[in-house]
Amino acid sequence: MGEFDLIARYFTRPVRHAALGVGDDCALLAPRPGMQLAISSDMLVEGRHFFADVDPEALGHKALAVNLSDLAACGARPLAFTLALALPRADEAWLAGFSKGLLSLADAHGCELVGGDTTQGPLNICITVFGEVPAGQALLRSGARAGDDIYVSGTVGDARLALEALLGHIHLPGELLAQARQRLERPTPRVALGLALRGLASSAMDVSDGLLGDFGHILKASGVGACIRTDETIKLIAAGAYPSSATGQFDQKLLQQCTLAGGDDYELLFTAPPQHRAAVAAAAAQSQTAVTCIGQVQAEPGLRLVDAQGQPVEHRFASFDHFA
Amino acid sequence: MGEFDLIARYFTRPVRHAALGVGDDCALLAPRPGMQLAISSDMLVEGRHFFADVDPEALGHKALAVNLSDLAACGARPLAFTLALALPRADEAWLAGFSKGLLSLADAHGCELVGGDTTQGPLNICITVFGEVPAGQALLRSGARAGDDIYVSGTVGDARLALEALLGHIHLPGELLAQARQRLERPTPRVALGLALRGLASSAMDVSDGLLGDFGHILKASGVGACIRTDETIKLIAAGAYPSSATGQFDQKLLQQCTLAGGDDYELLFTAPPQHRAAVAAAAAQSQTAVTCIGQVQAEPGLRLVDAQGQPVEHRFASFDHFA
Repeated sequence: MGEFDLIARYFTRPVRHAALGVGDDCALLAPRPGMQLAISSDMLVEGRHFFADVDPEALGHKALAVNLSDLAACGARPLAFTLALALPRADEAWLAGFSKGLLSLADAHGCELVGGDTTQGPLNICITVFGEVPAGQALLRSGARAGDDIYVSGTVGDARLALEALLGHIHLPGELLAQARQRLERPTPRVALGLALRGLASSAMDVSDGLLGDFGHILKASGVGACIRTDETIKLIAAGAYPSSATGQFDQKLLQQCTLAGGDDYELLFTAPPQHRAAVAAAAAQSQTAVTCIGQVQAEPGLRLVDAQGQPVEHRFASFDHFA
Repeated sequence: MGEFDLIARYFTRPVRHAALGVGDDCALLAPRPGMQLAISSDMLVEGRHFFADVDPEALGHKALAVNLSDLAACGARPLAFTLALALPRADEAWLAGFSKGLLSLADAHGCELVGGDTTQGPLNICITVFGEVPAGQALLRSGARAGDDIYVSGTVGDARLALEALLGHIHLPGELLAQARQRLERPTPRVALGLALRGLASSAMDVSDGLLGDFGHILKASGVGACIRTDETIKLIAAGAYPSSATGQFDQKLLQQCTLAGGDDYELLFTAPPQHRAAVAAAAAQSQTAVTCIGQVQAEPGLRLVDAQGQPVEHRFASFDHFA
């Protein structure tokens, strides 16, 4: 199978919204009047972002999910994406699975594949995604203000727990591993929540490198500090609800480590002023996405952790860094 | 140097046109009213698209040039691009050279770096570029009509000649190798010509996989055939003008092979009706880019080569295919 057959067979479908899709030198998009185009690009590398033997359908899902998560964090509605793919060889079984996972998630979000590139090389998946957001309404990292509540969507930390188990660092009971592995391999981009938070959240981003480290970017961009309650953050990891008799292999400290510095969560981390509490709860309900308030933004710079009694908690949680 | 320092140091600059640049979950672009956004994505892999020891500054130039060439082929004006980069390690000398070559070409075209991704992995460069074109005015592959002239910009084939020399398949005199290598490593995207051809060219694309193979995409998309004159195409390779006494090492057949099926040229290949001949010449002059008419589009399907006397020339030139 040649390069152009491969593209025609697995990655070419008629476009409904874009003015021009796969097959010319460029794709053409026409954002509606008054709309800004939100753009994000993520590159996934074998051995770094996924294991060589990962289910290709899950990989196709995740490759787009991590990009849709960036649109969600901006409150943008998905429109289209390009796919650049380096493959060691044209493996039809792999391509069938990968394209199925990719395009199923794309269909679920009305996000069209409009172009890209295919080449031979070490497996590398680079997706650039496009969404639209009314001009001036994008959720940014820079709008957090002292007094704002800090929220996290869904569950956080289970992806890292699965990674630790798959690397052989810890043992997880089979059922728990299966649950956690779903979170690692098939993350859910919080697109509906991001849309519902327009006009409510003062800042937002998605959690990809670890909750505390990522929140540091909001604090820096907004010029503020924060206090986060560890009795609330420990609730964020779904594995924490697993019967403790079965989880003697790992302790609360590991769960908190995974929660606060795990990475690969693709949940939304956002702030909102207290007067929007009811509206945030309504946005969560409307988008069928749980949100948890884990602390407050403060004027004093720095990130402080406190326990249920308000006592300081010592911490040294490092965020993920590809070159540190 | 960590990931975020690397991005801040080499790849973050204030944006002038985009609404939001590097540093948030998404970049924000706002195309002007009546404009469509042209989008193209290219992935360059070490050992496949460039040698491991290539000058990083030239590589930075080429990585963006091949993308700008796609915008040129659509008649789109460059606006912005994202860069996703997998690096084996954070090598500061390499990054300084690469970013210099990349951003110099970006500045020359007013094309802003607005976002992207950085990760560790086998060297891989994926750029997605954005341009704007008035709605309905993009140059496509599908508009060629019987009777149209077929044109190529600049010179074609020298990049492949350089590649053959660098691979040790042929020997080139030093001066000629230096010239040809410039064409391989620092291609010139024909952006000004593409803009000048709006409303004149009936179809266009850029030559990246080889002239004849690429032109096949225009013929297929347009549902036409063509006749191309080899006495004109042989003039397209700059090396053909080199004193023949010094080029005993390679013959006219090799030059024609490089011209018609070389690849990596990044020249524009376009068609235009005969009544636009004077206007095409004016567009070429205005954009300071030579164009050569090499044949005519015909109603009869298929691609025919003829010599100066109009006699058929047998040919079997294969286009580049990453998986063939």
